[in-house]
Amino acid sequence: MKKHNFSAGPAILPSTVIKEAARAVANYQGMGLSLLELSHRGPEFTAIMDEANSLMKEILELPDNYKVMWLTGGASSQFYMAPFNFLNQGETAAYTDTGTWASKAIKEAKNFGNVSVLCSSKDENYTFIPRGYRIPSTAKYLHLTSNNTIYGTQMHKFPKSPIPLVCDMSSDFLSRPFDPSPFGLIYAGAQKNLGPAGVTVAIVREDMLGTVDRVMPSMLDYRTFVNNNSLYNTAPVFPIYVSMLTLRWIKKSGGLKAMQRKARARARVLYNEIDSNPLFKGTVAKSDRSQMNVCFVMEEKYAALESEFMSLTKENGMVGLKGHRSVGGFRASIYNAMPKSSVVALVDLMQEFAKRKA
Amino acid sequence: MKKHNFSAGPAILPSTVIKEAARAVANYQGMGLSLLELSHRGPEFTAIMDEANSLMKEILELPDNYKVMWLTGGASSQFYMAPFNFLNQGETAAYTDTGTWASKAIKEAKNFGNVSVLCSSKDENYTFIPRGYRIPSTAKYLHLTSNNTIYGTQMHKFPKSPIPLVCDMSSDFLSRPFDPSPFGLIYAGAQKNLGPAGVTVAIVREDMLGTVDRVMPSMLDYRTFVNNNSLYNTAPVFPIYVSMLTLRWIKKSGGLKAMQRKARARARVLYNEIDSNPLFKGTVAKSDRSQMNVCFVMEEKYAALESEFMSLTKENGMVGLKGHRSVGGFRASIYNAMPKSSVVALVDLMQEFAKRKA
Repeated sequence: MKKHNFSAGPAILPSTVIKEAARAVANYQGMGLSLLELSHRGPEFTAIMDEANSLMKEILELPDNYKVMWLTGGASSQFYMAPFNFLNQGETAAYTDTGTWASKAIKEAKNFGNVSVLCSSKDENYTFIPRGYRIPSTAKYLHLTSNNTIYGTQMHKFPKSPIPLVCDMSSDFLSRPFDPSPFGLIYAGAQKNLGPAGVTVAIVREDMLGTVDRVMPSMLDYRTFVNNNSLYNTAPVFPIYVSMLTLRWIKKSGGLKAMQRKARARARVLYNEIDSNPLFKGTVAKSDRSQMNVCFVMEEKYAALESEFMSLTKENGMVGLKGHRSVGGFRASIYNAMPKSSVVALVDLMQEFAKRKA
Repeated sequence: MKKHNFSAGPAILPSTVIKEAARAVANYQGMGLSLLELSHRGPEFTAIMDEANSLMKEILELPDNYKVMWLTGGASSQFYMAPFNFLNQGETAAYTDTGTWASKAIKEAKNFGNVSVLCSSKDENYTFIPRGYRIPSTAKYLHLTSNNTIYGTQMHKFPKSPIPLVCDMSSDFLSRPFDPSPFGLIYAGAQKNLGPAGVTVAIVREDMLGTVDRVMPSMLDYRTFVNNNSLYNTAPVFPIYVSMLTLRWIKKSGGLKAMQRKARARARVLYNEIDSNPLFKGTVAKSDRSQMNVCFVMEEKYAALESEFMSLTKENGMVGLKGHRSVGGFRASIYNAMPKSSVVALVDLMQEFAKRKA
């Protein structure tokens, strides 16, 4: 049976990428050796790294003063590495509290300087993206979370800011074009739109570097990665290779404009069904709905049907649809690699279920 | 042509592990999904993680007060994480300077407390493991590097120490049995004897934890990994899976005693040839020769033949034999997964070359 993978991450990857990655593990380019066994300093991986970097720059249209870093430790490590690299004790950074991960980023930043939380939707279970806050021009940077995986909200427009933006884009990275120039740092765990778990991309604007005076271990200093092309130590070879394959796929598929067009089409089909189906309802403000993570629950009077519908989705080859415990119900993660046909299969099932039950 | 992979790391892995890893990338256990696309919180990866942990404990015969952590960032990150977790400002840690990596560990530790370097073989290009130093009982721990990948030396016996040992075992981890009880921390990048690049194992004795008073970001505190079974954030799924497969292979092959027996046999064949062949000579003290990384150079009078022999090895399917620039000549890394037949092929080539040239 065809599987429909709605997992929030690690998540669906393009099927051509999976096939090529499996071949590389078995025997890289017919060399008689697995990619896993090749030196990270050899010509094969050097070519992979160079291509990954140049595809990233091309696809995101990054100016020359932006440097791509391939890190590990997930976005969770960037929660402390960003303030560690940018914020002196005594200085202030501004944060927006739009979900669980934003709130963790705030907690970690407090270890390194003053944190001013400009807004929060926590009291309403993060069901919307706050607007209308004032951004202090004296703060070192403004931290944003572009898409909130758990709650299913997304920042469709970035705020105009007098200070550099630092943005966790983990769950909508590479799903839409954007102007990089207001950003001092963009970071994203790979395991949504880019690759398997085990690598984190961080893109830094050069003028952000070297502005703090604390003691920095080599592996926590962004400059170590910038100056050594992310090869100061052994890089996570396989996760970077798969990410490079995904970047190739994005380019071949038409780049970020095509990703955005497809994301909009997928999301529209699913949100339309949620809004018109008598059994289901969305959980967040319509204007802030994520095009990557679609959260929905049963209407109150049909609450008892939740587990029955969940079972039905499983019987139909759909995996990863259980909502996060903070929201409940269902979450359909529909990343770049998700075919529209999988979304249509889910919508068909919702319609069929409504016919039977409503 | 059959390839003989003498790379220092990422390095050769058992061929059965490679085959199973490739299958898991293509389609994990016939699920119709790649392992790369599965949630790190799902039943499949939970089972993998549990098996990896229990195999590690079983193979190393770890007492219950030792906890296995699966980290990222390589041994290079443990160079600062160990002192960060164990050493207060004002306290002293003892270090042994036995090679490039030991020296980097010393450099990073100096950021966090006092470092007392008990011995160094740097002045003789790290060609031996120093002995006879006094270990101060007032120091917090003694840091060792059990095997020096670049120079080809190995600590065949660990010093008797009044303080806990902290040991970088990256390049001989799982190659021999040892008594874990003197160790407060053991760490190893996976990409030698364990798995692909992208995961680092650290094994901590519980009483080492919580003994410093500095501010600790969650992702830098060993307790975060111990308390969350290394799943506080998204773990590097695939590198951990491949490591688990390698642990299965070690167990099935007879455990660490069998690994040691095979390592000794491989090393003996190669060192015997180096010592008896008129063209070649070893680079380090015989008593400290590594059973994992065998460094050798041409005898002075045959120095001009080096590149000819290097070409010959390549023509015969041998890769990764170029010595590190700090030593020159040749380095044959002969890790757990290296079949003796590959070592014999190299020895045959050395003999043939000597017959032609000597």
